[in-house]
Amino acid sequence: MLSPIELRSDNAAGAAPELVAAIANANHSSALAYGGDAVTARLHEVAQEVFEHPEAHVFPVVSGTAANSLALSALCPPWGSVVCHETSHIYVNECGATSMFGGGAVIRGIPGDGYKVHPDGLRRVFATTNWCDAHHSQPSVLSLTCPTDFGTVYTPAEVAALSAVAAERSLRRHLDGARIANAVVANGCTPAELTWRAGVEVISLGAIKNGAVSTDAIVSFDPEVNEALGYRLKRSGHVASKMRFQSAQLIAYLTDGLWLRLAGRSNAAMARLAAGLAGVDGVELLNDPQANMLFLHVGEDVERRLADDAALLFYGMGGGVIRFVTSFQTTDDDVDEVLRRFTSVVG
Amino acid sequence: MLSPIELRSDNAAGAAPELVAAIANANHSSALAYGGDAVTARLHEVAQEVFEHPEAHVFPVVSGTAANSLALSALCPPWGSVVCHETSHIYVNECGATSMFGGGAVIRGIPGDGYKVHPDGLRRVFATTNWCDAHHSQPSVLSLTCPTDFGTVYTPAEVAALSAVAAERSLRRHLDGARIANAVVANGCTPAELTWRAGVEVISLGAIKNGAVSTDAIVSFDPEVNEALGYRLKRSGHVASKMRFQSAQLIAYLTDGLWLRLAGRSNAAMARLAAGLAGVDGVELLNDPQANMLFLHVGEDVERRLADDAALLFYGMGGGVIRFVTSFQTTDDDVDEVLRRFTSVVG
Amino acid sequence: MLSPIELRSDNAAGAAPELVAAIANANHSSALAYGGDAVTARLHEVAQEVFEHPEAHVFPVVSGTAANSLALSALCPPWGSVVCHETSHIYVNECGATSMFGGGAVIRGIPGDGYKVHPDGLRRVFATTNWCDAHHSQPSVLSLTCPTDFGTVYTPAEVAALSAVAAERSLRRHLDGARIANAVVANGCTPAELTWRAGVEVISLGAIKNGAVSTDAIVSFDPEVNEALGYRLKRSGHVASKMRFQSAQLIAYLTDGLWLRLAGRSNAAMARLAAGLAGVDGVELLNDPQANMLFLHVGEDVERRLADDAALLFYGMGGGVIRFVTSFQTTDDDVDEVLRRFTSVVG
Amino acid sequence: MLSPIELRSDNAAGAAPELVAAIANANHSSALAYGGDAVTARLHEVAQEVFEHPEAHVFPVVSGTAANSLALSALCPPWGSVVCHETSHIYVNECGATSMFGGGAVIRGIPGDGYKVHPDGLRRVFATTNWCDAHHSQPSVLSLTCPTDFGTVYTPAEVAALSAVAAERSLRRHLDGARIANAVVANGCTPAELTWRAGVEVISLGAIKNGAVSTDAIVSFDPEVNEALGYRLKRSGHVASKMRFQSAQLIAYLTDGLWLRLAGRSNAAMARLAAGLAGVDGVELLNDPQANMLFLHVGEDVERRLADDAALLFYGMGGGVIRFVTSFQTTDDDVDEVLRRFTSVVG
Repeated sequence: MLSPIELRSDNAAGAAPELVAAIANANHSSALAYGGDAVTARLHEVAQEVFEHPEAHVFPVVSGTAANSLALSALCPPWGSVVCHETSHIYVNECGATSMFGGGAVIRGIPGDGYKVHPDGLRRVFATTNWCDAHHSQPSVLSLTCPTDFGTVYTPAEVAALSAVAAERSLRRHLDGARIANAVVANGCTPAELTWRAGVEVISLGAIKNGAVSTDAIVSFDPEVNEALGYRLKRSGHVASKMRFQSAQLIAYLTDGLWLRLAGRSNAAMARLAAGLAGVDGVELLNDPQANMLFLHVGEDVERRLADDAALLFYGMGGGVIRFVTSFQTTDDDVDEVLRRFTSVVG
Repeated sequence: MLSPIELRSDNAAGAAPELVAAIANANHSSALAYGGDAVTARLHEVAQEVFEHPEAHVFPVVSGTAANSLALSALCPPWGSVVCHETSHIYVNECGATSMFGGGAVIRGIPGDGYKVHPDGLRRVFATTNWCDAHHSQPSVLSLTCPTDFGTVYTPAEVAALSAVAAERSLRRHLDGARIANAVVANGCTPAELTWRAGVEVISLGAIKNGAVSTDAIVSFDPEVNEALGYRLKRSGHVASKMRFQSAQLIAYLTDGLWLRLAGRSNAAMARLAAGLAGVDGVELLNDPQANMLFLHVGEDVERRLADDAALLFYGMGGGVIRFVTSFQTTDDDVDEVLRRFTSVVG
Repeated sequence: MLSPIELRSDNAAGAAPELVAAIANANHSSALAYGGDAVTARLHEVAQEVFEHPEAHVFPVVSGTAANSLALSALCPPWGSVVCHETSHIYVNECGATSMFGGGAVIRGIPGDGYKVHPDGLRRVFATTNWCDAHHSQPSVLSLTCPTDFGTVYTPAEVAALSAVAAERSLRRHLDGARIANAVVANGCTPAELTWRAGVEVISLGAIKNGAVSTDAIVSFDPEVNEALGYRLKRSGHVASKMRFQSAQLIAYLTDGLWLRLAGRSNAAMARLAAGLAGVDGVELLNDPQANMLFLHVGEDVERRLADDAALLFYGMGGGVIRFVTSFQTTDDDVDEVLRRFTSVVG
Repeated sequence: MLSPIELRSDNAAGAAPELVAAIANANHSSALAYGGDAVTARLHEVAQEVFEHPEAHVFPVVSGTAANSLALSALCPPWGSVVCHETSHIYVNECGATSMFGGGAVIRGIPGDGYKVHPDGLRRVFATTNWCDAHHSQPSVLSLTCPTDFGTVYTPAEVAALSAVAAERSLRRHLDGARIANAVVANGCTPAELTWRAGVEVISLGAIKNGAVSTDAIVSFDPEVNEALGYRLKRSGHVASKMRFQSAQLIAYLTDGLWLRLAGRSNAAMARLAAGLAGVDGVELLNDPQANMLFLHVGEDVERRLADDAALLFYGMGGGVIRFVTSFQTTDDDVDEVLRRFTSVVG
C-alpha cells in the first residue's frame, strides 16, 4: 500500500518549524494587545529592511482573502472597479469579498495570455470606459496576481510597465502576492524590484502557503493608505489581540531570507518534477512552471490511475487536466517517487 | 527598581503552554485546507461534548470582534437592530463592525443596573418599538455580554429569563462570551446551562484572552445559521487556510476542562486581590468582581502613584477610577505583591 | 436650418399628457403618506387586474436602477450572484448598484446570441459552478432584460424555458422590464404570459421611458419577498412620502391599456423607420428591431453628416455604428422626415 | 357629521398648484436624461441665487431619507459616526439608512434641551471619544435638524456656534432641512444665514412637505463633495431619468420666494392655532411652536374625543400627548374651526 504524496496545494503543507518556534519564543512576559507590542514594532522595521522602503508598514491578517479584499477596499472607492486577470483569485475564488468590503465596488476580470494582464488589455479597458460617467463603475485599481493562479510569473519589468499604464488613468496598484516569495525567487530579483520599485503601492504578502502557521499580511508602501487600513481591519475583526504571535511569525519568515529559502525549495521541487515529466509520453505540460504550480494534460484514464493506483494527491481541473503544487516540504525524494509512480502508471 | 505587574488586560497576557504545544503537535503530514482536515472535524465533536449539544458547530475566527459581528450579521436582517447593554463591547468598542457586516443593521444600547440587560429594559424597548414599520430598525437580536465589560456575570437563570422575553418578539439570542470561561466558573454551572439551555442560539467563544495564541470562535447551536455563517466568514477572510492550527488550539482549550482551569486561576487571583483591597482605606470597589475584572475608585493622586511608584500596569478610566484585570498567568505571589505595593502607596 | 429630431433615447421624450393629468387629479384633500393612501391601495388592485395575479404588489420607485437593484438585493443573498446577459443594464450601466444594495452580491454577465441569455448558456454557468463552496459566489438569481438593451425581445416561451432551467438550481427569476410594454406589444402576448406565467417572480416595471413623469416600479408576484422589499425601499430613501402622486401615474399608465398603446406607437414608429432604412444603400441594420431600438452601421462619414447636416439626434456606438430609439412621441411624420434627411445625406 | 381636518402631518397635505403646473410646463420637446437638460442647468443657477453661493449644486432626490443618508454617506467615512440629537429623524426614523449607505457608519444620538444639540453636548462627545483609536467609530459629521422633529428652530447664531465647535475636530456639517423653509421664515433670516454662512456644508432641502409633488433635494455648498454625491446617487437609483420634471418643481419652489410664502402660511396657521389653544383649560403646550408643529398634553380622554367627536386628524404620542402639524394648505378658517371643535370637546 503506497503512502500518499501531497501535491494538491501548498495550503495542505504544514508549518515551517522556524515559525512554530517563533510563536513559542514570543510567549514571554506581558505585552500590549492589538499591535501595541514591541514584536510588532520590530516587524515594521524588518519589513522596511527587507523591502528597502523606509515607510513600509505591515498589517498581519489571517488569510489572503482578508489581505486582498481589505487592501482593495482601501484603494478603491465604492463606485470604482478593480481590474485584474479573469483567472485571478480575487475575481474567481473570494465569494465577492472585495465587493462586500468595498461597498459594492466591482471586480472586472479581463483576458490575457499566460494568465497575465498585458498593457494592451488594460488599455482596451480604458478605451471602452465611459470615464466620469456615473452609470459606470470607474476603473480605480489594477490588481496583479504574482505568481498567477496558473503558476506564471510577472517580471519586474512587466509589473513596472503595467503600473505605468495604470498610472496614466490614476489607477492604484495592488499586487496579490499570495505566493510572492516564489515569484521573487523565480525572478531572481529583490522584493523591492517586484513591488514598489515597479510602481506597486500595496501588496498582499502571503506567508501561510509558504510555512506560516496563522498569518498572512498586507504590506503598504503608501502611508496615506494606512489610516483607512487600520480602521478597516479593526472593524472587520482582523486585528489580532495578541498580535505579537502573528508578528513573530512574520519576523522569522522575513529574517535572513527564510521566506525565500522556503520558496526556493518548492520552486526547485517543481522544476525537478516538471523536468522529469517533460519526457513522459502522453503527458502535455500546459504552463511554464516558473514557480511551484504545474498544470498538465494526462487524460481522464491516467488521471484516475494517478489518484487510485499511484496514491498521488492532486486536483483535477476537468477534461483530464490535473494540477500539481509543490511546497517547501516537498523533498527531492518525494519528487523522484512521484516520477516513479507516474511512469509506472503511464508506462 | 520594581518590575511591572500586568493588570491592564487579559489580552496582555501570554499564551498557555498547552496551546502553544497544540500548534506544534498539529504540525504533521498534509491536511486539507479551509477546515477540511481531521483536526477541525474533531473540534466539532469536542464542542458537542463540552456543550452537550449534538449539533454544536465551531467556526474558528481570529478575534472576538470577528466572532461577534459575523455572528450578529448572520442573525440580524439589514433592517434589524441588535439590542444590548449600553456598555457592551459590540456597541462601544468595535467601530461599527456589526453595522458594516450587517448591511446597516443598527446596534441599540440600553441601560441596566450592574451593566446587565434586564427583562424590564428589554420590554421597554419592545413597548417603544413601531413594529413592522419600515421607518424603524426592527429589534431582531438580543446580545448579552457575559461576563460584562465591567466584570459582572449573568446567571443561567437570568439568561434564560431574558431569552424568554426576547423570544416573545422572535428576537434571536447571541451571547458575547469573550470571557465565557470566567462566567462559567463564576456561576459554577455547565457551559450548556449558560448558553443553549438558557435559550442562546449562537455564542462568541473567547479563547485568546484566556490563553489561546491566535483563535477565538463562533459556536452555533442552530444548524440553520451555519450556511450563512460559512459564506459570511469566507468572504470576510475569516476562514484560515491552515485551519487545523486554529482548531488544535481550541481542542486543547476545551479538552479536560483546561479552559475552565485557566479561567479559574484568573477568577481566583481577582478574588484574592479584591479581598485584599476591600480593607484598604480610601479605596472604593465599584463592582462585585465575580470574574476577573475590578473597577475601583482610588483618586487621581493614588492612581498616579500606583503607576509611577508601584509599577502597576493598569488602565485609568478617568476621575481617579482604575481597572484591574487578572489573567490565568496572575499568581498568588503577583497578587500579594500588588497588595503590598498598593498598601505602601496608599498608606 | 433643420429642427432636430429626437432619436437618442425614449428617456429624452416628454411625459404623456394622461400621466401629467393624473398628478393633477390626485391633488385633492389630505392623504396618508408613504403609501398609506387610497390611490396606492387602488394601484395594487389595478396591477392585480392587469397582470391577472391576485397577489401582485407594486412598489413605486423613481428609476429603473432603483427597481432593478432593490429587487435583486431582495432576491439574492450577499454571497450570491445574479446571472444575466453580458450586455444587460444591471451589469453594464448601474455602477455596481446591485452589489452595493446586495452587500457584495456579484453580477455575472454571460454571452448569448441576440443579446439574450439562452438555456445552454445558463447550464454552462451551472456546470462550472462550485456549488455550496464558500469560495465562490453562488448563482442565486436569473435576471432577464426584455426587451434587451439591444432591442431584441424574449418570447414568453423563451422566458418560461429559462425560468425552468433556473428553477432546477433554485435560482429566483427577475425580469428587467424597463421597456416591458414594448415587449408585450411586440410579442402580442398578455403581461401575465411574459412574466409570472413564464416563471418570473419579480419584475422591474418601466414607465418613465414610456410616458411617466417620475415613477417606475417593482411589481412582486411573490408575497414572501414583500416584507424585505418594504424595508429595503424605505432605508434606501425610495418610499415617496406623497406616494399617491407616483401611484396615480401608474394607475393611469396601466388603465385601459394606455401603457400598451404608448408602446405600440413607439414600436410602430420603429417598424416604419426600419422598413424605410432597409432599402437604403450603404446602411446595414444590425438587429431585428422588434421593439423601439435600432442599431445600424452607416460608417463614420455618414454618421457625422446625419448629426451635422441632417440634425438627427442619436447616439454613436463607435466604428460608424449608430443607435436610433423611437418613443411614444415619435410620429409618422417624424419618421418620414428622418427618412428624407437620411436619404439626402446618404444619396 | 363633521368633515375631518388634517393635522397629522404636512406630508398628508397635497401639492401646491404652482408645482403641479411646473411639471406640465416642463413637458415640452425633447431633453437629455439624467440631469443633462436645460431645466436642471437652470436649477443650479436658481439655487446659487437663492442661497447666495456661487457653487451651490442641487441633487434632486425623491425623499428626505434619500437626501439625508446619501449626503451623510458622502461626508462620513465608514468608520465614522454622525453626531445628532437623539430625537432626530436620521437617528430614529430612517431604519439605518445612513449606516447602510455609509458602509456601517454609526449614528450617535445625544441629548439636548429643546430637542437641539448644544455646544456643551458636542464637546462632551469629543471629551469621551478615543480619537484615532480604531476600536471606536470616529465622530466625523455633525448633523442638525432644523426645524427639529419637535418643532423647535436653531437660530443662525446657534448653527454657527455648533459648526465652529464641530470644526475644531474637523467634523463636517450637515443640516437636515426637511422643513427648512419653515425655519428660515421663523428666523426671519436668509437661507444663506442659516446654512453655509453658519458653517453648514451640505443640506437636505425639503420640498415635498411644503408643496412639491415628487422631489426633495440635496444642496451642496462644497464642490469637493459633488463627485462622490454624483456616483452615490446614481448607484442608489436616485438619479431621475426625466430629471427636468423634478428640477422644474424645485425651480418653481425656489423662485420668487414661493417656498417661503408656503412655509409662512403653515407657520402662521400654527401660530394662530397655538395662540387659540394657549388659553384653553386643561391643555398644556409642550413646545414653543416656532415652525408648524405643536405638541400638547390633553389627557387621554380628551385625545379620544378630539379624534372621535371633533373629527380632528392628528397623531397621538402616548400618555395623552398629541401632535398637531399645519401645512401650507391650512387656512385661517381651518384653524378657527379646529379651535371651535377643541373648545367644545374640552368645555
